[in-house]
Amino acid sequence: MYNAKAYSAASETSPLASTTIARRDPTENDVQIEILFCGICHSDLHQVRNEWSGVMPTVYPCVPGHEIVGRVTGIGAGVTKFKVGDLAAVGCMVDTDGTCSECKAGYEQFCHNMTLTYNFPDKHTGGVTYGGYSDSVVVDQKFALKVPASLDLAGTAPLLCAGITTYSPMKHWGVGPGKKVGVVGLGGLGHMGVKFAHALGAHVVLFTTSPNKVEDALRLGADEVVISKNADEMAKHAGSFDFILDAVSADHDINAYIGLLARDGNICLVGAPEKPLAVSAFALLFGRKSLSGSPIGSLAETQEMLDFCGEHNITADVEVIPIQQVNVAYDRLLKQDVKYRFVIDMASLKNEA
Amino acid sequence: MYNAKAYSAASETSPLASTTIARRDPTENDVQIEILFCGICHSDLHQVRNEWSGVMPTVYPCVPGHEIVGRVTGIGAGVTKFKVGDLAAVGCMVDTDGTCSECKAGYEQFCHNMTLTYNFPDKHTGGVTYGGYSDSVVVDQKFALKVPASLDLAGTAPLLCAGITTYSPMKHWGVGPGKKVGVVGLGGLGHMGVKFAHALGAHVVLFTTSPNKVEDALRLGADEVVISKNADEMAKHAGSFDFILDAVSADHDINAYIGLLARDGNICLVGAPEKPLAVSAFALLFGRKSLSGSPIGSLAETQEMLDFCGEHNITADVEVIPIQQVNVAYDRLLKQDVKYRFVIDMASLKNEA
Repeated sequence: MYNAKAYSAASETSPLASTTIARRDPTENDVQIEILFCGICHSDLHQVRNEWSGVMPTVYPCVPGHEIVGRVTGIGAGVTKFKVGDLAAVGCMVDTDGTCSECKAGYEQFCHNMTLTYNFPDKHTGGVTYGGYSDSVVVDQKFALKVPASLDLAGTAPLLCAGITTYSPMKHWGVGPGKKVGVVGLGGLGHMGVKFAHALGAHVVLFTTSPNKVEDALRLGADEVVISKNADEMAKHAGSFDFILDAVSADHDINAYIGLLARDGNICLVGAPEKPLAVSAFALLFGRKSLSGSPIGSLAETQEMLDFCGEHNITADVEVIPIQQVNVAYDRLLKQDVKYRFVIDMASLKNEA
Repeated sequence: MYNAKAYSAASETSPLASTTIARRDPTENDVQIEILFCGICHSDLHQVRNEWSGVMPTVYPCVPGHEIVGRVTGIGAGVTKFKVGDLAAVGCMVDTDGTCSECKAGYEQFCHNMTLTYNFPDKHTGGVTYGGYSDSVVVDQKFALKVPASLDLAGTAPLLCAGITTYSPMKHWGVGPGKKVGVVGLGGLGHMGVKFAHALGAHVVLFTTSPNKVEDALRLGADEVVISKNADEMAKHAGSFDFILDAVSADHDINAYIGLLARDGNICLVGAPEKPLAVSAFALLFGRKSLSGSPIGSLAETQEMLDFCGEHNITADVEVIPIQQVNVAYDRLLKQDVKYRFVIDMASLKNEA
């Protein structure tokens, strides 16, 4: 075990503050990564403030962060995938059982014995896992992804959650040329959704409540932008979408979007509203429509997404902050005051005692 | 125009009562059918009592009934599909535009200019369409289905709505050998769902709140029966279903069933609860699950379903009643006191003045 610098929350009402945590020394198949950048995901805030207490109660101290990019500083004797000095990335998972039907099918994201990157029982330390708001992390090489050298590193960090969470359902539901695809909400996930849908060749319509996001959405790759509060604008698109990616985690009227789906269309939730969604059975029936949900993606798909980003030069639009500003960033996140993802420059952690 | 005997409701609080309605004389492509049996669908009750006022307000007098089986008594000059004396059936649709993208794709059930069998603007009469609680009906030959001669006619009537509504989504979502399929609710739709899932070769689990339905469910083709109020029994099936057909129109906890789906599983609503369903985003996310809805089926699929029933000797389990008992039947329907579909023997209408 060794000490790593980190930022943690001591309780659901505490701000994040500088601390020291114990990390394991790399075992045979582990890579040790010096974290260069870590994205701030809305999940981090939910977890830190114990807002998912019903499903995933928070264990304190809590070190969040699962959008990790860094450089390999140490490897175990069995590691073949990386060498010291390589770029590496870590997303939401740091372990799976490898033996269940989901793992065997290549769907690690659905493993029932998965270990998430933070706030999950840590088999190695006996405590809980600590995430990427830290100067280093140690993971099995299987859970470390390769980073295309061409990409901006700060903008790459959010690909590990916001990126794969939007890329995976689009690939699964066949987003591509000839498809009309909606993206609801232009935040951390939504702006990646627009970029991917555009890069995959679909006709992309962005839905937003904010008229001041129109210009940005078009710049990011949307072909059209609809102000969702405008019933007339919404009505023009009734029954026309093959797929809609719903990236809104605030309470919203899902039936308004189900009505925009074409026959056999699917609206996929990637945000996770706290309150249940009120779904009209009639809205689904007429048109054989589906409402679905999708979490991250498999390891292979995450690598595929990173490689796709390398080929298409896709990264997140980010605002880079020092870790000392993380609590301010959380406040701004709640006001949606970020274009479109905060990323912590972990060099700033070196200044902490 | 000619007069036909019928039962109609005069208002949302009126019982159904004997009346006379005007039917059109058969035009070139029409078949005139003497109705022998008409099933009582829960939709009939909803429509008669104007319980869907928000979506499909009822026009009075209202003659419901869209599970129609009878014998052809007259044909127009252009009719080639039927001859006088043939058996014929009519379901929920009596017209579509034939020109929209849905019709051209063979999905008449999604035509935006569809005419439903009752309570829809009638292009021929200028009034509304009148359904099957009547001694005759006149429809374009395209909307009349052929009835396999081997089938019991009273038990065949419910196939036209309860049958196709359960058959269509099972075919669409690939119910067959090797699939684990759930059916929620053993009523008019649910009991057909069990029969079809069994005949299609799936492993069938019936969910019911009523322990006294267990024996029947097994007889109808279920491999297992789960009492849905029993949390332990439910938990045993967590994450295991490829497909669940939800035939419950009463308010119920949909998330409990979403939790029973395997990865990429789908639960399809064929009942239409009045209140919106409270759907947990988390329940859908973990396992990339879908909630969908499906109405009836296309004309070709309805014929396929009737032929499938002919081959497998499948009919609904029915309680045949004279039309004079229709109001009592509605009361019993609300108490779920029917095994499993009321069917009106239309010979009884001859007794009315």
